[in-house]
Amino acid sequence: MARIAVDMDEVIADALSEHISRYNQAFSANLAPSDLHGQHFLHAIPAEHKERAESMVHTSDFFADLKVMPGAQEVLRNLCEQHEVFITTAAMEVPHSFDAKYQWLRKHFPFISPMNFVFCGDKSVIHADYLIDDNARHFTHFIGSGILYDAPHNRNVTGFRRVHNWQEVAQVFAKELQPV
Amino acid sequence: MARIAVDMDEVIADALSEHISRYNQAFSANLAPSDLHGQHFLHAIPAEHKERAESMVHTSDFFADLKVMPGAQEVLRNLCEQHEVFITTAAMEVPHSFDAKYQWLRKHFPFISPMNFVFCGDKSVIHADYLIDDNARHFTHFIGSGILYDAPHNRNVTGFRRVHNWQEVAQVFAKELQPV
Repeated sequence: MARIAVDMDEVIADALSEHISRYNQAFSANLAPSDLHGQHFLHAIPAEHKERAESMVHTSDFFADLKVMPGAQEVLRNLCEQHEVFITTAAMEVPHSFDAKYQWLRKHFPFISPMNFVFCGDKSVIHADYLIDDNARHFTHFIGSGILYDAPHNRNVTGFRRVHNWQEVAQVFAKELQPV
Repeated sequence: MARIAVDMDEVIADALSEHISRYNQAFSANLAPSDLHGQHFLHAIPAEHKERAESMVHTSDFFADLKVMPGAQEVLRNLCEQHEVFITTAAMEVPHSFDAKYQWLRKHFPFISPMNFVFCGDKSVIHADYLIDDNARHFTHFIGSGILYDAPHNRNVTGFRRVHNWQEVAQVFAKELQPV
């Protein structure tokens, strides 16, 4: 049995699509995730839009409305049968998100106990065997193995095992943690 | 440098006094912390009061109003100079408390970065050298050393190093972590 820590935004929750959709509506723009080319969303838009675009995340309904990443529920439900799964999200960066994030997790991942939710900032405090995250900076001081979940902003990041979808996550654990 | 994880309720925040005070007011009772004799507060009151007494914690203003435990600010400010201090609270047990706990920490411990706040449930996920907590159950699967912060409900718990106040916490780290 392994302990697997799983990030929320861009890993199980599609925050980027929601952000781009709200941005496009507010600015009558037509940005697509493929336009990011390895940049963070806020770096890919005109500087004068940045402040307003950033503030869009700082509302509680933003996190309530996010779509689940395809396959995340099915694969995590299976992983939970053999492993300890924790959801570890850098919620302290957006303090207004706590309640919405909690409710979202309860709604979409009812099979994960809230006792396994971790709202934190610096993820070096997480004690787990694996961390699936789209931000490689969290791997630097992480005690276990980092698994980089592919996202437009991390396309140019190298040096970590990369997964592109939840089917690939399932494959990693099927291979790596098979009983011998 | 060590990483020190510090619990909130009964360690840096005096939740018990507030709970007893609200209970006494609601039930015209006269309970004192010394009446607990090794029991949890909710076990020390008549069974028919339990449900209402328990619900008192599930309001956001409960956590906003808590007094700081004497000496916690001064000692933690000093410890922060040499060590990494994380605040690790089992906030998932009271999901309505997130915002109030965050604001309370910002107000009373402004010298600790929110990136070092951890709202969790099961604390075995915490990666630290020390955990200062009044609930010994969190020490069972903790990777580091547990330090039991004395509280009426844990008076009969043995097997852990016990501190009775923040001056004793300072002494533990002054002795243990002196440069050689």
